[in-house]
Amino acid sequence: MDELRLRILTDGKNLGNGILKVDGFINHQVDPRLMDACGRALADRFGPLGATKVLTAEISGIAPALTTAFHLGVPVVYARKTKPITMPDQIYLTLAPSHTKGRTVELIVSPEYLGQDERVLIIDDFLASGQTILGLVRLAQAAGATVVGVGALIEKSFEGGRTLLASLGVPIESLAVISDMSEGRIVFAA
Amino acid sequence: MDELRLRILTDGKNLGNGILKVDGFINHQVDPRLMDACGRALADRFGPLGATKVLTAEISGIAPALTTAFHLGVPVVYARKTKPITMPDQIYLTLAPSHTKGRTVELIVSPEYLGQDERVLIIDDFLASGQTILGLVRLAQAAGATVVGVGALIEKSFEGGRTLLASLGVPIESLAVISDMSEGRIVFAA
Repeated sequence: MDELRLRILTDGKNLGNGILKVDGFINHQVDPRLMDACGRALADRFGPLGATKVLTAEISGIAPALTTAFHLGVPVVYARKTKPITMPDQIYLTLAPSHTKGRTVELIVSPEYLGQDERVLIIDDFLASGQTILGLVRLAQAAGATVVGVGALIEKSFEGGRTLLASLGVPIESLAVISDMSEGRIVFAA
Repeated sequence: MDELRLRILTDGKNLGNGILKVDGFINHQVDPRLMDACGRALADRFGPLGATKVLTAEISGIAPALTTAFHLGVPVVYARKTKPITMPDQIYLTLAPSHTKGRTVELIVSPEYLGQDERVLIIDDFLASGQTILGLVRLAQAAGATVVGVGALIEKSFEGGRTLLASLGVPIESLAVISDMSEGRIVFAA
């Protein structure tokens, strides 16, 4: 998606060690028009799959998942990282190693909002190592739901997430694929 | 706003102790169409104030703040509760007691995205004790920015937040005002 790639080049920052700073338009400050356009683009790509629900992880997945769900006309569920007091005692919980946080985080979904008849589209801001998305896949599977696709705003293809998720056999779509961040570069895949 | 009040009555749950569960359409599962309508309603009310930025707190403020910012055509910044590695060392940080979490949380904003020329509209899911919103006010003031308004989806008027924020002298708008949650009731203010 040209608009997102252009924004990454103008406002994104390669901090080294594979860390892409997009705090100016995705992760801390959010550009709502861009996020809406990204959600529309993802909804266009996944529309034919008949998703009944979008699933993401708090925090930075919420914005793109919300706009994608809006354009698909389905609800979005964001997995919590701590169990709120409003959640029942019986929950789906999985652990996912977080590369950027340097530790393992919990991903928690209430069975109230993820059922076995659901067709789940997983959306996140980044597809990097794929570990967070794989955690969301486990939550969906625990609920007996069917994962129908995986979408991300930005993919760092050199971190191997797509390979990890390939065995799911579902479409994986990223709006901007970065193939190289070595030596300060931000190179998009052709 | 009738649509939100109706949804609270049909899908919300009074858990006692003033806790309103809205996990089915705001706080865990989100209804994107409702959130868009709420954002439009808040943008309509605050439009004339000339806000240049919407400020909220992660996590549950993100959805309503994003849709409000979308309809105002301005960026949204969500205060982080932990400092990500992409943030500079010099930050604005304040502490806010969280009623529902039973502890104090940090609210952190990067000076990169909150400047002294900004006209800030604060949006959150709940206006209850007002402590989180007051924390956001302190962050805006630390940046030298001007707070021009405060908006929430749901106000629990019996928790006194509006009184706490009155000295700001800015418009405070809530789309649904609940005046009584005693004995399992959910009563809206007239």
